[in-house]
Amino acid sequence: MRADTLSNPFAARQERLRAQLDTRKLSCLLVSNPLNIFYLTGFRGSAGIAILGDSDAVLWVDPRYTLQAHEQARDVTVLEERAELLKAVGRWLGRKRPRVVGYDDSYLTCAAFRRLRDYVSRGIRLKPAGGLVEGLRRVKDSLEIAQIRQAGHLTAAVFQEIRPQIRPGVRESDLAAEIEYRMRRAGADGAAFETIVASGVRSAWPHARASSKLLKKSELVILDLGAILNAYAADMTRTIHLGDPPRRVRSLYNAVLEAQRRAVEAVQAGERTCDVDRAARRVLRHSRLERFFTHSAGHGVGLEIHESPRVARGDKYRLEPGCVITVEPGVYLEGFGGIRIEDTVLVGEGQQEILTPAPKDNWFIE
Amino acid sequence: MRADTLSNPFAARQERLRAQLDTRKLSCLLVSNPLNIFYLTGFRGSAGIAILGDSDAVLWVDPRYTLQAHEQARDVTVLEERAELLKAVGRWLGRKRPRVVGYDDSYLTCAAFRRLRDYVSRGIRLKPAGGLVEGLRRVKDSLEIAQIRQAGHLTAAVFQEIRPQIRPGVRESDLAAEIEYRMRRAGADGAAFETIVASGVRSAWPHARASSKLLKKSELVILDLGAILNAYAADMTRTIHLGDPPRRVRSLYNAVLEAQRRAVEAVQAGERTCDVDRAARRVLRHSRLERFFTHSAGHGVGLEIHESPRVARGDKYRLEPGCVITVEPGVYLEGFGGIRIEDTVLVGEGQQEILTPAPKDNWFIE
Repeated sequence: MRADTLSNPFAARQERLRAQLDTRKLSCLLVSNPLNIFYLTGFRGSAGIAILGDSDAVLWVDPRYTLQAHEQARDVTVLEERAELLKAVGRWLGRKRPRVVGYDDSYLTCAAFRRLRDYVSRGIRLKPAGGLVEGLRRVKDSLEIAQIRQAGHLTAAVFQEIRPQIRPGVRESDLAAEIEYRMRRAGADGAAFETIVASGVRSAWPHARASSKLLKKSELVILDLGAILNAYAADMTRTIHLGDPPRRVRSLYNAVLEAQRRAVEAVQAGERTCDVDRAARRVLRHSRLERFFTHSAGHGVGLEIHESPRVARGDKYRLEPGCVITVEPGVYLEGFGGIRIEDTVLVGEGQQEILTPAPKDNWFIE
Repeated sequence: MRADTLSNPFAARQERLRAQLDTRKLSCLLVSNPLNIFYLTGFRGSAGIAILGDSDAVLWVDPRYTLQAHEQARDVTVLEERAELLKAVGRWLGRKRPRVVGYDDSYLTCAAFRRLRDYVSRGIRLKPAGGLVEGLRRVKDSLEIAQIRQAGHLTAAVFQEIRPQIRPGVRESDLAAEIEYRMRRAGADGAAFETIVASGVRSAWPHARASSKLLKKSELVILDLGAILNAYAADMTRTIHLGDPPRRVRSLYNAVLEAQRRAVEAVQAGERTCDVDRAARRVLRHSRLERFFTHSAGHGVGLEIHESPRVARGDKYRLEPGCVITVEPGVYLEGFGGIRIEDTVLVGEGQQEILTPAPKDNWFIE
């Protein structure tokens, strides 16, 4: 966790970016993903383009966003453009004549790139630099950690509040609405994603939406929720059984719980994310459940609900203090139901920290 | 409005697409935008790739979505792929050997395209075909119109419900939370976008978010809201003045209201969308307010809250029966406040229809 100022982290983030530009031999970076623009400047509009270079930091916005950009953006010159932003960028580059301009090929569409290419003078090289800012974003600074912790604690508190309402006869979508309403009332910007409430056989769909189905006795219910607060997300899943669980359900739940516990233990600085995935998978293999674990063990969380690093087989990224990832093993049995348990977890200097602290042991309703 | 079956419109939409493939001399189209996949097949997952050709309709999904795709997708063969979807598509194309494959260059990123290019055999041409499905989506079929009308009426009803709560001392973000909660409870999937509640000087930001600011007496409050229901969105804005409005505010409001009324009248089959924009702009110019109208007059609405056609100066698209657009003139005076009035409007066979029927005349709170 970096010792940067809490009040204005943007200069520090831009400095980290500039170091990367040097390493990658880029004169400057064209940033078009609004989340990356927010990360680097604090401007939170949905449209804009920024150029960040050794001595330049410019943000172009359309007239809708001029006032907002002047109010929010830090350490960057705001320019209003009434015509196409990419065209204004092209003109500016034509005057500045940098040698190599990086662009975010994992965000920019083919069509936008073609227009940019047309607007930029010959002699200026456009070089794919996808994932550069996302790479910086993998390690959160102290302000970001504080924000995600707040979003996570809010999420856990809302789950605890609505837990008594998880009972037979309640509509999945009403529970989801209640969850999102309480997030907002508790100060969240909103839900970081469409809250999942999936009961009965629907819980076997790992990405089911909340439907008009009523909860029924003796069903499993997966609740996957996360607040977004000051632009930062948290992500948490709990599974509840309505009534005393039969032995089979108990053993499934305990296997997933143990898989999650072991995987959380593996969230350590210096460990690779594939090791976290493997820790979960090993427990489920031992219970002959691995084939029902049909997705990866987790993902980074921050400005996006899914961001780098991936936490899956083959992902060799080594965790650093300040990384925040989810740990979410699950098993899905078609026609029967599913169980998933998920927390947002911070890689600390020493011990990891669960940022979504809601109980996992009182998981059935008597 | 097309006389298609309400129960399964997907075959009809695929037929419209096939006619376009012929016109554009494409053997098939690679569809990667999840909304376009939903439009053409009914599959509502967040990831997947489809190929639609004269005799083929195939949808690749990863294991998370296999059950869901089998349940939801119509008139398409569902294939599960455990590795990268684009790679599976490349293999399939290698076997089928179509001559020209269209791809959505306005959705596919540069990085994804580069991978696709690597996976596809030489001799198969990849041709940009961005906006092809979006072009079809401009004219809604009867099922879509019914869905947007339902979303619009729900949005208007929720506004009417919460109207008594728009009063001094209430927090912007609490009003936004209340609006979104009531949408969900009324059966919406959720809000189509983050509800805007912007009061006082904040109302001069056309895209302000709801903040923790409390509403105050003698302020303007802009509320911009829209439900999403069965995947279809509506969009509506009302402006409220807290207390008896001074003369200046009255004349601003009446100018915007008149601009909106005239622009709605211009929403007719055969008219160009720039004519709708011009109708609004002309009224505001007459009141010397045109320079405060800093955005375009509207946009298409459907599966996306902003979709084709644009409704702005220079947009020559001619409206057809079945088009649905917003009409939303506004004026924004920095340091003072803003006024915007917006409806979602259907181009009918004869008369246009306002799909967000909430009053615009009782706009201040005594």
